[in-house]
Amino acid sequence: MGLDFNLLNTTESGGRRGQLSLPHRVVETPVFMPVGTAGTVKAVPQDVLETLGAELILGNTYHLYLRPGHDAIRRMGGLHRFIAWPRAMLTDSGGFQVFSLSQLRKVSDEGVRFRSHLDGSSHFFTPEHSMDVQIALGADIAMAFDECTEYPADRPRAQESLRLTMAWARRSLDHFRAHRDEVPWLGEDRVPPVSPLRPGGEQRGQSLFGIVQGGMYQDLRRESAERLVEMDFDGYAIGGLSVGEPRELTLETISRVLPMLPADKPRYVMGVGYPDEIEQYARMGVDMMDCVLPTRAARHGLLFTSEGRVNIKAARYAEDQGPPDPACNCMVCRRYSRAYLRHLMQAGEALSATLNTIHNLAYYLGIMERVRKSLAAGG
Amino acid sequence: MGLDFNLLNTTESGGRRGQLSLPHRVVETPVFMPVGTAGTVKAVPQDVLETLGAELILGNTYHLYLRPGHDAIRRMGGLHRFIAWPRAMLTDSGGFQVFSLSQLRKVSDEGVRFRSHLDGSSHFFTPEHSMDVQIALGADIAMAFDECTEYPADRPRAQESLRLTMAWARRSLDHFRAHRDEVPWLGEDRVPPVSPLRPGGEQRGQSLFGIVQGGMYQDLRRESAERLVEMDFDGYAIGGLSVGEPRELTLETISRVLPMLPADKPRYVMGVGYPDEIEQYARMGVDMMDCVLPTRAARHGLLFTSEGRVNIKAARYAEDQGPPDPACNCMVCRRYSRAYLRHLMQAGEALSATLNTIHNLAYYLGIMERVRKSLAAGG
Repeated sequence: MGLDFNLLNTTESGGRRGQLSLPHRVVETPVFMPVGTAGTVKAVPQDVLETLGAELILGNTYHLYLRPGHDAIRRMGGLHRFIAWPRAMLTDSGGFQVFSLSQLRKVSDEGVRFRSHLDGSSHFFTPEHSMDVQIALGADIAMAFDECTEYPADRPRAQESLRLTMAWARRSLDHFRAHRDEVPWLGEDRVPPVSPLRPGGEQRGQSLFGIVQGGMYQDLRRESAERLVEMDFDGYAIGGLSVGEPRELTLETISRVLPMLPADKPRYVMGVGYPDEIEQYARMGVDMMDCVLPTRAARHGLLFTSEGRVNIKAARYAEDQGPPDPACNCMVCRRYSRAYLRHLMQAGEALSATLNTIHNLAYYLGIMERVRKSLAAGG
Repeated sequence: MGLDFNLLNTTESGGRRGQLSLPHRVVETPVFMPVGTAGTVKAVPQDVLETLGAELILGNTYHLYLRPGHDAIRRMGGLHRFIAWPRAMLTDSGGFQVFSLSQLRKVSDEGVRFRSHLDGSSHFFTPEHSMDVQIALGADIAMAFDECTEYPADRPRAQESLRLTMAWARRSLDHFRAHRDEVPWLGEDRVPPVSPLRPGGEQRGQSLFGIVQGGMYQDLRRESAERLVEMDFDGYAIGGLSVGEPRELTLETISRVLPMLPADKPRYVMGVGYPDEIEQYARMGVDMMDCVLPTRAARHGLLFTSEGRVNIKAARYAEDQGPPDPACNCMVCRRYSRAYLRHLMQAGEALSATLNTIHNLAYYLGIMERVRKSLAAGG
């Protein structure tokens, strides 16, 4: 009822060129997913995201649950319709933000009690509740409710955290399977969003991914992967990375965990990374990645370019009439100069975030497009 | 060397349908000019402004002089090239902002000493300096340096203010005529911006408008208009309105001053107004208007629609899936709902200002398009 994943080519180094058929889009993989926290990829209109070639964007369950609320979004037909984004979406489980943004959280086997970072109101998230919220939001892909193990974590702590995540994965999956047909758009024939049919003519529904945790302990990672695979999720994510560990450890964990995951299911590394990282991981066989880096850095004036990182606030760009990235053909680089982008930042103008973000996303999405071509050609 | 103004039709009530040929654009009049204070119409990318049909936008001399500085803009080829706006532009004289934004200003016959609202640095503006700055910026139309008479102003005060404005108009014009060939793009053959040629094959240069002041004293307004017309500017503005006076007084002043201005030159009312005002004034024979209202109100969540003003922050729109304006065909109304625009404001998202502003500008520019059609048809 969920996704189909069609591997077009696998290279010797394990890189995969594929197509991920979701209710709202056939997504070319490997794919980078721009982060649309509160139902908007910050400062970028949806039509521009389409022009940039974004096929799958992420929404944050924690933020959308608090504001405007998942019940309101359900009543309005789900997240796609609410934010006017007809292509594919993925929601995280809310777990990461509960642990990183909320206050006074209290974790039990049952779930997490926390206070909203917006107004201090008290909330209780369980795996079942996370599923209810994500089904109401109705993204193409939902994520199991997990605890993102912090770094560093000693072995007993990582073990205990993993125990919780595995129990929650089971409960997430059971609840999801029992309620997945309650997704707001299922059964509707309106266009858009329209759900492409599976080969048998059946309408596609929502999918659920499991999340591998285990801290930096490779045997715990293995245990986590094996138990999730046994539960049979629609896809698998590697979580608990990019939490402050050295980059070699990120790389080692990814390279060890990937072979533990079924080759015919999509593999998603959460929260990475820099431009060279997303290329490296894609070439190793990671199919999906997301990161706030290109969008958040843009708002602080950091541009990723073919010539390296450009801090557009720097005085040396004050009269630089060259494009932000001479090798880039995005709508920003074709039209505007470094001097103008610097001026917009200096003047605190809203257009600054918009233009910087458009370029950074074009750069990230361009990397993935080149990697896909390279993988299709064998490596 | 400056503009050509071609009146296509004049209605019985005095409304005029015309074409204003400027170096960077043939502008259809009557025209509403979006305000691009610091070299950006706040939150809206230039390509969107083009799509909306904006032909002539305004830049603020005071802001651009302070940051990034007119010398830097001159070195970069002028304001059009700096902000990547190939269509027409107009700069104000800086006078209004010197009086409304700066601190510790001291006015003498020579000019105005003031402190920057940005960093408290001291600056001295004279009519000659305003011309130098505006020539360096290189907008299609520059404005004479004036004192915007406050409201209310008693007669001696309005008289004294007018004396200053008239002396400054003379000095502005003399200095402009002596230096207008120093505009950065004149003589260049690069495209864009390209300067359409006048019928004789001569390249068009910058134009200068005079500004009628005189407070709410109609005889002072007459004196002001007559003296300016004698000086022979390229066009005439009515200033000192929308400064807090009752609307009937705005209307009366405009209707009295318009007949004092030559019919074959463009007439510009500065700083107006609400949607019904711009329509009313256009039908009376005003050719050009500018106002921060559609853009500033948008950032505060106030939308102008065919159903009246919509405060998009209101709770009643929380689940309103209708378009911001059912009668509007702009890119925002075609795609997004009131509920989504409200959510963006509630969440403090940058996209809010962008989408609200796009709609309000579409609404204002749409009014002018309808008025032009109506005027062309005789009224």
